[in-house]
Amino acid sequence: MRITNLALLAFMAVAQLWIGNAFAKASEQSYEQLKDQYYKDHPGKGKHAEYWEAIPIQKYWNPKDFYKPPTTVTGEFTREMCVTCHQSTTPGAYHAWQNSAHANLQRIRDMSNGQDARYYKKEKLAEIEKNLAKQGLLVEGAQLKEVGCIDCHGSVGAKTIQHDKNLVMPDRAKCGTCHVSEFAEAESEKEQEWPQKQWSKGHPSHSVDWEANIDLAIWAGMPQREIAQGCDMCHYQQNKCDGCHTRHTFSAAEARQPEACATCHNGVDHNEYENFLLSKHGTVYQTQGKAKWNFEAPLKDALTKGGYTAPTCQFCHFEANGEFSHNLVKKVRWAFNPTPAIADNLSHPWFAYRKDAWVQTCSNCHSPGFAEAYLTTADKGTIEGVKVEQEAKAVVEALHKDGLLPGQKTNRPAPPKPETDSAGGFFQLFWAKGNNPSHVERVYADMWEHDLIKLYKGIFHANPGGFTYTEGWSELMRDYAMIMDENTKLREGKEKIGRKDVSHKSVLHAFAQDLSGRYVLGPLMVGVGLILIRRRR
Amino acid sequence: MRITNLALLAFMAVAQLWIGNAFAKASEQSYEQLKDQYYKDHPGKGKHAEYWEAIPIQKYWNPKDFYKPPTTVTGEFTREMCVTCHQSTTPGAYHAWQNSAHANLQRIRDMSNGQDARYYKKEKLAEIEKNLAKQGLLVEGAQLKEVGCIDCHGSVGAKTIQHDKNLVMPDRAKCGTCHVSEFAEAESEKEQEWPQKQWSKGHPSHSVDWEANIDLAIWAGMPQREIAQGCDMCHYQQNKCDGCHTRHTFSAAEARQPEACATCHNGVDHNEYENFLLSKHGTVYQTQGKAKWNFEAPLKDALTKGGYTAPTCQFCHFEANGEFSHNLVKKVRWAFNPTPAIADNLSHPWFAYRKDAWVQTCSNCHSPGFAEAYLTTADKGTIEGVKVEQEAKAVVEALHKDGLLPGQKTNRPAPPKPETDSAGGFFQLFWAKGNNPSHVERVYADMWEHDLIKLYKGIFHANPGGFTYTEGWSELMRDYAMIMDENTKLREGKEKIGRKDVSHKSVLHAFAQDLSGRYVLGPLMVGVGLILIRRRR
Amino acid sequence: MRITNLALLAFMAVAQLWIGNAFAKASEQSYEQLKDQYYKDHPGKGKHAEYWEAIPIQKYWNPKDFYKPPTTVTGEFTREMCVTCHQSTTPGAYHAWQNSAHANLQRIRDMSNGQDARYYKKEKLAEIEKNLAKQGLLVEGAQLKEVGCIDCHGSVGAKTIQHDKNLVMPDRAKCGTCHVSEFAEAESEKEQEWPQKQWSKGHPSHSVDWEANIDLAIWAGMPQREIAQGCDMCHYQQNKCDGCHTRHTFSAAEARQPEACATCHNGVDHNEYENFLLSKHGTVYQTQGKAKWNFEAPLKDALTKGGYTAPTCQFCHFEANGEFSHNLVKKVRWAFNPTPAIADNLSHPWFAYRKDAWVQTCSNCHSPGFAEAYLTTADKGTIEGVKVEQEAKAVVEALHKDGLLPGQKTNRPAPPKPETDSAGGFFQLFWAKGNNPSHVERVYADMWEHDLIKLYKGIFHANPGGFTYTEGWSELMRDYAMIMDENTKLREGKEKIGRKDVSHKSVLHAFAQDLSGRYVLGPLMVGVGLILIRRRR
Repeated sequence: MRITNLALLAFMAVAQLWIGNAFAKASEQSYEQLKDQYYKDHPGKGKHAEYWEAIPIQKYWNPKDFYKPPTTVTGEFTREMCVTCHQSTTPGAYHAWQNSAHANLQRIRDMSNGQDARYYKKEKLAEIEKNLAKQGLLVEGAQLKEVGCIDCHGSVGAKTIQHDKNLVMPDRAKCGTCHVSEFAEAESEKEQEWPQKQWSKGHPSHSVDWEANIDLAIWAGMPQREIAQGCDMCHYQQNKCDGCHTRHTFSAAEARQPEACATCHNGVDHNEYENFLLSKHGTVYQTQGKAKWNFEAPLKDALTKGGYTAPTCQFCHFEANGEFSHNLVKKVRWAFNPTPAIADNLSHPWFAYRKDAWVQTCSNCHSPGFAEAYLTTADKGTIEGVKVEQEAKAVVEALHKDGLLPGQKTNRPAPPKPETDSAGGFFQLFWAKGNNPSHVERVYADMWEHDLIKLYKGIFHANPGGFTYTEGWSELMRDYAMIMDENTKLREGKEKIGRKDVSHKSVLHAFAQDLSGRYVLGPLMVGVGLILIRRRR
Repeated sequence: MRITNLALLAFMAVAQLWIGNAFAKASEQSYEQLKDQYYKDHPGKGKHAEYWEAIPIQKYWNPKDFYKPPTTVTGEFTREMCVTCHQSTTPGAYHAWQNSAHANLQRIRDMSNGQDARYYKKEKLAEIEKNLAKQGLLVEGAQLKEVGCIDCHGSVGAKTIQHDKNLVMPDRAKCGTCHVSEFAEAESEKEQEWPQKQWSKGHPSHSVDWEANIDLAIWAGMPQREIAQGCDMCHYQQNKCDGCHTRHTFSAAEARQPEACATCHNGVDHNEYENFLLSKHGTVYQTQGKAKWNFEAPLKDALTKGGYTAPTCQFCHFEANGEFSHNLVKKVRWAFNPTPAIADNLSHPWFAYRKDAWVQTCSNCHSPGFAEAYLTTADKGTIEGVKVEQEAKAVVEALHKDGLLPGQKTNRPAPPKPETDSAGGFFQLFWAKGNNPSHVERVYADMWEHDLIKLYKGIFHANPGGFTYTEGWSELMRDYAMIMDENTKLREGKEKIGRKDVSHKSVLHAFAQDLSGRYVLGPLMVGVGLILIRRRR
Repeated sequence: MRITNLALLAFMAVAQLWIGNAFAKASEQSYEQLKDQYYKDHPGKGKHAEYWEAIPIQKYWNPKDFYKPPTTVTGEFTREMCVTCHQSTTPGAYHAWQNSAHANLQRIRDMSNGQDARYYKKEKLAEIEKNLAKQGLLVEGAQLKEVGCIDCHGSVGAKTIQHDKNLVMPDRAKCGTCHVSEFAEAESEKEQEWPQKQWSKGHPSHSVDWEANIDLAIWAGMPQREIAQGCDMCHYQQNKCDGCHTRHTFSAAEARQPEACATCHNGVDHNEYENFLLSKHGTVYQTQGKAKWNFEAPLKDALTKGGYTAPTCQFCHFEANGEFSHNLVKKVRWAFNPTPAIADNLSHPWFAYRKDAWVQTCSNCHSPGFAEAYLTTADKGTIEGVKVEQEAKAVVEALHKDGLLPGQKTNRPAPPKPETDSAGGFFQLFWAKGNNPSHVERVYADMWEHDLIKLYKGIFHANPGGFTYTEGWSELMRDYAMIMDENTKLREGKEKIGRKDVSHKSVLHAFAQDLSGRYVLGPLMVGVGLILIRRRR
C-alpha cells in the first residue's frame, strides 16, 4: 500500500514560509519590544483626525487615547479597599471576578489531575509568573497570589492607587503584561502581506481593526457621531481584549464558544455566526456540543478532551498547519469581501498554499478529497457572484457617468468631508441626503457589500440557504433585476424624451429635432391633414 | 477620600416619587379590590366592538369575554377524576403539571437548606396560604395540599366541577387569587402616567396590552380576522399569565430566561430579543449562562445564588431602584417607539430621573460613568434617527397633499372602517388594496415603524450591528434614499408634463403652453386660426 | 357523565385508511425488496440529464451515481487498519465514531435498567442482528461486535477493503442494511398520493427530494453549477441518512432536537425552524428542554422518560395516529406551499381526516377544542394569503400579456434550457439576465414563494410575528402595494403615451390618435402642414 502524502509534506514545509512566518517573528520579541511596537503602530485618532472629535463613550472603546479617570471618587485606595467597595457598588463585576480564574489562582496551582481539561492552565500560570519576573514585576520564583482590580486598573502588584489620577482601562498591552505569548500571537497579524496588494499590510485583521475603522472617510465624516461609534463597538479589538474574553470573568471557555464571536460577526456583511449556526457544523454544536463538549479544554485538545464532534469558529480560524494561536489570518484568502483582485489571483502560490492549509484543517474530520472538492466549489461559486456584481457595477457607473441618476443634476449633495462622492460607494450605506444616493445606487451598494459577501460567507461556511436561496445568490439576482429594470426605465426615459434635461421642454425639443431634416415631414403633415379633412366630409 | 454620591442619594429619594408610587399604592390593595378594579378596567371588546366579531380561537386569548366550556364532555367530576382522565387525554399537560411546583407543594414545604436557590418559594407558599385564608378559601393555619386542575379551571379548593358548565380558562385574576402580590405588581403598571401625554395612562404596558390591541382601528377593521388574531397571540398579557409562565409547568425558572420573552419581543418592531442575544450581554448568557447560571434563583439573588455574570431581559426590566417586581414600566422612557414628543422632552425630570434609575441598574456591573456615557449616546443616536424619519415624513405627506402618489386620484380605496386614510399610516402595514398604500408610503411606514424602532432598540440593547449596519441606521438611509428618489421622480414627472392629470392630454397642454411666445407659435396659431375660421364659414 | 369521543374512534378507524396505509405496506417488505425498489425508484441524473454535468462535490451529495474512491490511497486494508490510520488522518471523525453507539455495542447490550431512556436500543440491537442474519451477514444468534469504518464504507462484516477500488460512501440502502424498519418507514413516504393531484406521487417528501431537485428545469439549466449544488446540500435525503444523523456519531439524540432540522428548514421559503424557535413551543424547548429533557428517550417516551413539556419538530412530524415513524408526510395537508388547488379542497375527506389527525397530535397537550380552533384559524389565515397572492398574480401576468414589463420587447433573454420563460416564475429567483425578470416580476416571485409560504408556516407553527407583522401578512401587503404601484405606473405610462413603443415618436403618434375624431384635428394638421410647407419653401 502507498499513501501519496509526499506532496502534502512538501506543501507543509513551504507553507511555513507563507503562513508561519509572522508568528515565528513575533514570538521572539520581549514584552517591552512588543509593547513599544504596539503603541508605535497604534494610529490614535488616525489620518482623518481633524474631521472628528471623540464623544464620551469612546473613551471606553479606545482608552489609550481618550480615557480619563472619573473625578467623582478621589483618594488613595489599597488593593483590598478596591474589592470591598466594588463588592457593593458594582456587585455584578465583583461576583464575576470572584468566580474567575484571576481570583482563584491557587485552585489552578493545586490542580493535580492531568486529565482535567483545564490542566494546561497550570503551565500557563507558571509561564505568566516567568513573564512577570522578567519584567521585574514579580520576584523570581515567587508565586502570583491573585489578579485583582488594582493589577489591571492600576499596575501589576501595586499596593495602592489614586482613583481619580491613575485609574486605567486596560488595553491590549496591559493584558499582554501577563499574557505575553497571546499578545505576541495577536499582534503578529500585522505582519500579514497580500501578494497583489489586495489589502494593505496587516489588513483586514483584529490587530488593525481600530485603524481600519477610523481611517474610513465616511466614519470620520458622519455628523451622527453616536451612530458612528456603533462601528467602534466592534472595531476595538486592536485596543482591548474583552471583546472575546468578557470582563470580569475573562473566561477562555466563553471565548471558545461561537457566541463569543457573534456580537461582531453577524448581520448583513459579517454573517459568519448565522452561517455557522445553520450549517451542520453549527447544528451539531447546538445539539451535541452544548450538552456534552468541554469548552474548558484548550483548542489543541478539542477533539480529545473537549469531545468536539464538529468544529467551532475558533477551531478552524485559530488553527494553521495544526497549530493554534491568536493569529486568525494565517489562512485568510477571500478575506472580508470578494473582489476581482482576489478572484483573478487564486492560482498564485500565496492563495494556493492557503487553500491547502484549509484542506488540512477540514481533514481533521473530512477526507482531503471532500475538503478539496468543497473548497473549489466555494471558490467558483464566489467567483460567479463577483461576475454578477461586476456587471451591475458597470450599469450603475454608466448611469452616473451619463448623468441619468434621479436628481443627479438638481439635488445631489456631496457627502461630508473627508468622504468624496462616487456611484454606489460604501458611504451610501451610512449617509444619505437629497438624491445622494439614488435608489439604484443604494441597491448596488447593498449588492456588493451585503449580497455578495453573504454569498461568499454562506458557501464557505457550508450553509446551503445562506448562499443559495435565502441570502447570497437569490438576493444578487433580485438586486441585479432591480438595477437592470431601473437602467431600462432611466434610459428609455432619456431616449424617449431627448438627451437633455427631462422636462416638457425637452419633449418638444426632441420632437422637433426628430422632425427636422426628415424629408417626409412636410408632405406627411399635409397628407395627414388632407386625409383627415376628407374623411370628415 | 470622598465619594460624591450625595447627588445619587438625593436622586433616589425623589425618584421614589416618580417611579415608586404606583407599586406602593397597588400593594396596599386587598385581593378583592384588585380583582374588582381589574375587571372594571378591562375593556372587553373595546371601543370598536361594533366592527368585529370574535372567531373561535379568540376565546383562548380573552377567556373572560369569549370562553364557553365545551359541550362534548358533560357531567360532574371530582378533583381526582380530572387528573386521572387528563393523564390519558392530554398526557403532555398532565406530565408538565405533575413535575411542576403546583403538584409538589410538600417538596417546597420540606426544604431546609437556606442556600438552595429555590428556598424563597417556601416563604412564597406561606404567603399564598395566608392570602387564601384571608379570602376564606383555606382554613387559617391549614396547609395547601396541591394546586390541581380543579383549583384553576374551577375554583380554589373545589371538590367537584360541572365540566360543560363551570369550566374556566384562568385569567389574571384567577392566578392572582393565590399570587396576590404578583397580581398587584403587574396591575400597578396601569398607574403609569406620561408627563406630556405621549401615551395615555398605563400605556404601553403588559397590563393594558389587550386594550391597546383591540382599540387599534385597523385591527378592528381588518376583514381578515384570522390574521388579526395573530396580534392577540401576544397582546393577551392583560388577560392571562401564561404568556411568560407556560402552562402547565408555570415555571419561574423558565420565565426568568430571555427566551420566555422571545415569542412576542422579536421581529421588525419588537426586536429586543435579537438585540439582547447578539449583545455581549446575550452572548455571555448563551455561553456562561446556559451552562452555569441557576435560574431557580429569584432575580434579587441573580448575581449571588444565580451566578449571573451578565444581565437577562428580566434582570434589567423587572428592576427599579434596586427592587424587583412584575411592574416592568417603572424605568420606561422611549417606550415602544421614538417620537419627537419624547425626543424633545428628555430633559424633563420625569425622563431624567428614569435615566438615573437606569444608570443605577447598569451600575450593577458597569461604572456609573460608563452607564451615563452609554445611555446618553443611545439617546442622541435615537434622536438622529428621529430627524431622518421626520424629514422623510414631510416628503411623503407633501406628495399626498399634492395628489402626486401613484393612483391617488384613480385607484385609492379607503381602508376598512373604523380606520381612516392617511399617508404612511400604521394601517398600511396590515392592509392594502389598489393603490392604497402607494409603494413610497409603505416604505415610509416601514421606516418609522421598523427601521427607527430597530435603531432605538438596537442601540439601547448594545447590539452594534443592530443599530449601525444590519438594522436601524443603514436601513433608515436606504429607505430615506428610496423615498427621496421617488419624490424626485414623481415631482419631475409632474413638472415635465404639467400640473394636471398625468396623461397625453396634459402633455399637449404643457406643449402648447411652452410654445407660446416662441417663434413658431404665431404662424402655427395663425394657421390653426385660419383653418378654424374657414371651417366655420 | 358522557364523553363524546365516539366520533373520534370512528375517525381513527377511517383515518387508518388515509394515513396508515403506506407504512403498513412498506413494513412488510424484505430488505432485498426494499433495496431493489429504492434503486429502481432512484432517478440518477433525472429527466434533464442532458443539460448538466456533475461537478466534483456532487459525488458526496449523490454517491450512488457519482462517487469514485480516491486513487491517492491504494492497497488492501483490514478493519483494524482503517481505524488506526483514520485515528491520525481524520481524528475528528475517529473520535466521533469512537464515542458513538456504533463503536460501543456492548454497552448497549449490557444495559439492565429498563428505566434508562436508552433501554429501547437494546431491543433495536437485537432487531438489527436478526435483520443481518436474515441477509446472511451474521450467523443466526451471533452478536454484532461493532460497526466500524469497513462495515459502512465497504460491506457489513467485511475483513478487508481495497481502498481505491471498493470504498463507498454509504447511501440510504447501505444504512438500511442494518436499520431495515427505519429504511422501510422512510421509503414509505413515496406511497403518498394527493387526492386532486396537487403534487405528484410521493411529493413533496424526503424520500424523493433528490428527484424534486434535479427535475427542476432551472436547477438543471443554471450555468452556475456551484450555486446549483447548494440545493443538493439539502436535497439529498433521498440519497443519504446523515442529513439528520450527522456522521460519524449518527446520534438519535441529536436527530431528535430541532436544530437537526435547521440546516435545511430555515430561511425564506423553509422557515419552519425559526417559527418553531420563536413559538411558545420553541421557547419552552430552549429554556426547559435544553436544561432538563432527555433526548436519549425515543419519541414515544418523550412525555414520560423524556420529560418534554412542549413539542419538538420531531414529536409532531414523526407522529400519526399516535405512532411514530420516519414517514413524515402522513399528516401533510398544505405541504410545501399554499395553492388554490389545496385551498379549494380542504373539505375533501383526505384533508379533513388529516386535520383530525393533527387535532389528535395537538391534544397531547391541548384540548381538542383548542386544537380544532387553532387549526381552522390557520387554514383560514392561509387562505387569506392565497387570495392576495392570486390578485397580484393576475396583475403581473396581465402586464406580461400586454407587453408592458420594462424591457420586455427589447431586452428579455430567454432563461437557459430546459427552463422556459414565464412571468413571475420560480426560475426568476435563481436566474436573471437583462430585463428578465423585471423588478415587478421578481417581487411577485418573492411574494408567492417567500411571503405566502412564511405566512403559512408561521401561522401553523404558532409564531405570531412569523405570520402577522415580521414575516407573512405584512410582507404580502408590502409586495402587493409595490406590484399595484408599478402596475399603475406602467399602465399610466402606456395610456399617457400610446399603445406602442415608449418613445417620443409614440408620444406624437398617441397625440395624433387622440386628436382624431375631434373637431380640432383636421384643421390643426392642415395648418401645421401648410405652415411647415411654407417654411420649407
